[in-house]
Amino acid sequence: MASKTLAIILGAGPGTGQALAVAFSKANAVALLARRKASLESVCQAVEKEGGVAKPFTCDASDKQSILDAFTSIKTEFPDHQVKVAVFNANNPFLMKPFLELTENDLKPGLDLNVYGAFTFSQQVIPLLLQAGGGSLIFSGATAALRGGAKLAAFSPSKFALRSLSQSIAREFGPQGVHTAHVILDGFIDTPALTEHFGPAEDGKRIKTASIAAAYVNLANQDKSAWTQELDLRPYSETF
Amino acid sequence: MASKTLAIILGAGPGTGQALAVAFSKANAVALLARRKASLESVCQAVEKEGGVAKPFTCDASDKQSILDAFTSIKTEFPDHQVKVAVFNANNPFLMKPFLELTENDLKPGLDLNVYGAFTFSQQVIPLLLQAGGGSLIFSGATAALRGGAKLAAFSPSKFALRSLSQSIAREFGPQGVHTAHVILDGFIDTPALTEHFGPAEDGKRIKTASIAAAYVNLANQDKSAWTQELDLRPYSETF
Amino acid sequence: MASKTLAIILGAGPGTGQALAVAFSKANAVALLARRKASLESVCQAVEKEGGVAKPFTCDASDKQSILDAFTSIKTEFPDHQVKVAVFNANNPFLMKPFLELTENDLKPGLDLNVYGAFTFSQQVIPLLLQAGGGSLIFSGATAALRGGAKLAAFSPSKFALRSLSQSIAREFGPQGVHTAHVILDGFIDTPALTEHFGPAEDGKRIKTASIAAAYVNLANQDKSAWTQELDLRPYSETF
Amino acid sequence: MASKTLAIILGAGPGTGQALAVAFSKANAVALLARRKASLESVCQAVEKEGGVAKPFTCDASDKQSILDAFTSIKTEFPDHQVKVAVFNANNPFLMKPFLELTENDLKPGLDLNVYGAFTFSQQVIPLLLQAGGGSLIFSGATAALRGGAKLAAFSPSKFALRSLSQSIAREFGPQGVHTAHVILDGFIDTPALTEHFGPAEDGKRIKTASIAAAYVNLANQDKSAWTQELDLRPYSETF
Repeated sequence: MASKTLAIILGAGPGTGQALAVAFSKANAVALLARRKASLESVCQAVEKEGGVAKPFTCDASDKQSILDAFTSIKTEFPDHQVKVAVFNANNPFLMKPFLELTENDLKPGLDLNVYGAFTFSQQVIPLLLQAGGGSLIFSGATAALRGGAKLAAFSPSKFALRSLSQSIAREFGPQGVHTAHVILDGFIDTPALTEHFGPAEDGKRIKTASIAAAYVNLANQDKSAWTQELDLRPYSETF
Repeated sequence: MASKTLAIILGAGPGTGQALAVAFSKANAVALLARRKASLESVCQAVEKEGGVAKPFTCDASDKQSILDAFTSIKTEFPDHQVKVAVFNANNPFLMKPFLELTENDLKPGLDLNVYGAFTFSQQVIPLLLQAGGGSLIFSGATAALRGGAKLAAFSPSKFALRSLSQSIAREFGPQGVHTAHVILDGFIDTPALTEHFGPAEDGKRIKTASIAAAYVNLANQDKSAWTQELDLRPYSETF
Repeated sequence: MASKTLAIILGAGPGTGQALAVAFSKANAVALLARRKASLESVCQAVEKEGGVAKPFTCDASDKQSILDAFTSIKTEFPDHQVKVAVFNANNPFLMKPFLELTENDLKPGLDLNVYGAFTFSQQVIPLLLQAGGGSLIFSGATAALRGGAKLAAFSPSKFALRSLSQSIAREFGPQGVHTAHVILDGFIDTPALTEHFGPAEDGKRIKTASIAAAYVNLANQDKSAWTQELDLRPYSETF
Repeated sequence: MASKTLAIILGAGPGTGQALAVAFSKANAVALLARRKASLESVCQAVEKEGGVAKPFTCDASDKQSILDAFTSIKTEFPDHQVKVAVFNANNPFLMKPFLELTENDLKPGLDLNVYGAFTFSQQVIPLLLQAGGGSLIFSGATAALRGGAKLAAFSPSKFALRSLSQSIAREFGPQGVHTAHVILDGFIDTPALTEHFGPAEDGKRIKTASIAAAYVNLANQDKSAWTQELDLRPYSETF
């Protein structure tokens, strides 16, 4: 095996997740977690095609036991690896809906994922990062983590909560060598799904997944004297 | 009955809640919601002693059905009143605990209250405020709504989420006449419980509940040409 | 003289300034500072018509000596008064202009007013507030104090700087009893000048000057256990 | 000459400036601006020792004519280069002083540098970046750009103003291909001067100048689909 360090990526779907997997596989083996088996295997193949080592772990990030099971499997599959990177890239679908039409069921997926799921993931991963003598924990966030908006009452609160979680973890574990960052992805991401629905974007007007991945790799490589806690990424053409 | 307008106050305990009840009872009847019956009745008496009209509704703000039941009762008890003010003043206990020692059970009370509870309360109250031709919806928030902190990973996320909720509601219902505000209570509040535990504070070094109430009444009285969405309140001596 | 306390209002023009003068004159004599003599006298008359005591002091708030002279005159005219309130309400004209067309002369008025002027005003007024055993210092700010914007490079920086000044003063003098607040006026203000240019606004769609004044009076009346450092005011219909 | 692109670095002193010069010289010739000739020459030598091309331009960044003269010289010295990077790294000395002891002379250096100087520098550099078909403009900022503090009334306002300037420029010129970023340097920087005064720091407890430079190079290399406007950098051990 080329590498004895491991990057764990939760939310390893065909868009940003795959780009993260490929990018982090250059210096680490990658453990890839996502819900759908077929999509996971395709991402693994993409990593292997580039010469990386990847293993798939089906996991529902909004289900505690599912996360715990995935970590049990990761430890079995990578018994000798040091976990240097963990990325929480799980995303609940965007939801814009009049407040009075919402039900608790509209709120639940975001909270189960961005609060409970991110919490369980962090509790699993931080001890591994500490054992490795430090490493990076990166959360994918959204503009809705910075401000609410009309009809965003089901989507935005859990994004705020995730940002809060990243800050609390950063402050508690920074002095122990765990670098925690939260990334504001401000704009449409240029995923295969989006291209299929809306057609291709003009160059640079949607955030390229490879560019996101490059930014995350840079975060993970930051010297411990100069860590970033929060980073915004947006297309040059985005109004903000 | 002296008044045909109603203020609904959730979290009508013996500290801030009672001060809010008394303050809003000067111009409105008050519907008071809290978990503990004994404490609710004592707050009602405090209002009545000042010449106000108050009715108690036992309610667990982290339980959807309990909130729905309370609103059914409120409508029965105050069939002819217009709801002009609603205050979400429910508070989960402060919790500071090392991240790796937390369990989901430490997160749940805050989320059930500040996300699900605040959501249900808002869904109940906004139609009433709209029926009344507009009114005020005020959320009690905390410093932990603005920044996370070491060992605050169970406490801070739901406070962030509540702030987000207030912003989304403000933006959606402002143009329809509902004034939504979020108040950052930054400092210890001078409650009977705190005095009992720590002794009396030097004058002004703990936030007086009557001062909080005065600020909320001012918010509720703001002309619709000049609404405040977020307000911080702290003792003169507080470091911030 | 009815009152032995004094409120000093810099920027006492015919719009917000006059409303502040009238509002603060209910409990204080008012010293009114503005550049134009004619307009100052008209504001004084408005105060007197409402039964208040007002004196005019012509003052260019972007000129240090002019501010110093005004304070010398104020002390002469009100030798026995305690200064309990000071408002910095001076405003440079809004300027939106492509960056590459700006000159230093476009930046200078804002900086001279919002940095140097506010600094000198604060240095004059804080010792008086301390002598009075504490009081309030309120700065009128703008949305451009919170975020820059395309073509706002001459307007926004000095608004940011004024906000910073208010925070530094708040933190230094709060513990000594000086309450410093910064108000974000987010929206068009319903001034006579605006009405003349654009016609009257629909009710509530422009910030009423009397509503601003009411908010400032509330700030000045806050108990020292519950001070607000920053307040936003905007029309109910404003997008934000 | 190895490279036909140019990076212009204002504030090219022996600490961060030198690290930036060396880092950007890997892919560009570098034009280095600073006040002191001796120090500039030493930085140029450091670049050349690493195989880069550097030219010194003495320049007082708080003096308009001095900046204009430097740019005239830069254009003469590098007639065929495309300006792809510009860094405003000038810094006024930190000043913490009781507010009532400050004079306008304490405010002036910060404003002349961070407002007027940054303005003139930006006006010179943006047309060159536009001519080059786009590029990066990076401002070195400070924690005091985010919040004021007791006794910081002379230091913080101009840092706020610089941040505002960066935002306005980012929003105006982003769509034209100019990537503008503001970096919050939150912590002590590990400069030779600091080591001389306080002795060496424990590894990672002061921000390494090479780490700052790496972050700036990463910013400049960001794909236009994923630009960062604001970045914080702090030691792992920093309380924030």
